[in-house]
Amino acid sequence: MSRWEADGRGRLERAALALYGERGFDNTTVAEIAQRAGVTERTFFRHFADKREVLFPPEGALQLQELLVSTVATAPASLAPIDAVAAGLEAVGAPLQERRDAARQRAAIIAATPELRERELIKLTAWSAALADTLHRRGLSAAAARLTAEVAIVVFRIAFDRWIEDTNDRDFPPFVREALDQLKAVTVGT
Amino acid sequence: MSRWEADGRGRLERAALALYGERGFDNTTVAEIAQRAGVTERTFFRHFADKREVLFPPEGALQLQELLVSTVATAPASLAPIDAVAAGLEAVGAPLQERRDAARQRAAIIAATPELRERELIKLTAWSAALADTLHRRGLSAAAARLTAEVAIVVFRIAFDRWIEDTNDRDFPPFVREALDQLKAVTVGT
Repeated sequence: MSRWEADGRGRLERAALALYGERGFDNTTVAEIAQRAGVTERTFFRHFADKREVLFPPEGALQLQELLVSTVATAPASLAPIDAVAAGLEAVGAPLQERRDAARQRAAIIAATPELRERELIKLTAWSAALADTLHRRGLSAAAARLTAEVAIVVFRIAFDRWIEDTNDRDFPPFVREALDQLKAVTVGT
Repeated sequence: MSRWEADGRGRLERAALALYGERGFDNTTVAEIAQRAGVTERTFFRHFADKREVLFPPEGALQLQELLVSTVATAPASLAPIDAVAAGLEAVGAPLQERRDAARQRAAIIAATPELRERELIKLTAWSAALADTLHRRGLSAAAARLTAEVAIVVFRIAFDRWIEDTNDRDFPPFVREALDQLKAVTVGT
C-alpha cells in the first residue's frame, strides 16, 4: 500500500468518526464521508467494505484477540488464572493506548447506536470464547474457563470505560489492575 | 382475573413457546398462536401486547428484579458483597425453579433470535444497574458496585445455563453456589 493510500485510510477514518459523532451513524452516508475526507467513494470502498467497517476493521479486532490469547497462553503457569488474563488485558491496552481520542469517539458512537452495540458485543463474545479456549488449554476445566473468560471481559469493559472517561489521561494497564483488585476485594470479602 | 382468563393465558404461553420452537419466533404469527391455544386473537391481546411479550412479560422481569434487589439489600451486613449477591441470585432461582421446562424452551428460542437476545441483554443490564445501585447503598463505592453487579450477572447467566442443561434436574441454587466458588478459586489463585 502506498503512503498516499495509507493516508487516505487515516483521513477517511477521521472523517467518518467526526460525521458519526455529529449527525449519528445511521444518518451518515459513505458519500459524505468520502467528501469530507476529500477522496472519491471508490477510494472509500478500497479501504472499507461499508461504513460499519470503519469502526470494526476485521484485521484490527483479530489482532487484538490474538494478542490477548497469545499473552494468556504464554503467561507463567504459576499465575492464578485471573492474573494470566490480566496480563492479556494489559497487553491489549498497548495498541489502544496510542489511539485514545479515536477510542473515545468510537465508544460514544457505539453507545448511541443499537446495531453497533450488538456488533461490539459479538466482538467481545468472540474474545471471550477464544480466551475460554486458551484457559482450558492452560488446565482449567471448561466450566471454570468460561466463567473466568466472561468475568475477564467484564473487567476489560469496566477498565476501558474508566480509561476513556479519565480526565487525567492515565495509561490503560493500571485501570485493568485496579478493576482486578476490586474484583478480588469484593469476591473474598473483607 | 377470572380462572378462565388465567387458564387462557397459560394456554397461550404454551402454544406460543411450542410454535416459536417449531418454526422460529420470526415465522410465527399471533393468529397462529391464538388458533393453537383455541382462543381468539382478541383474547391474545388481552394478555399480551405482542408476541414478544409472551417471552418477556414486563411484570415478570420486574418481580424478579425486585426479588433480587430486596434480597441483596436485606442480606446481613457482615456478608462479602459477592455473597450478598449470591443470596439474591439464589432467591431469583425459586420462581424459575417451578418453570424449568418453560425456561428451557424460552432459552432455546432466545438463543436462536438476534432481536430476542438483544432484549434479554437489555433485561439483564437493567438487573445489573439495579443491583449496582443496591450494592452502592450497602456501602460499596459506585465503581466497585458496578463491577460486582456485572460479575454477578455473569455468574447468574452461567448458573442458569448449567441449570437448564443439567440432565439430572438438580435445583437452581447449587448452580449459583458452584459458579461463585469457581469464581473465588480462579480469582485468588491456588
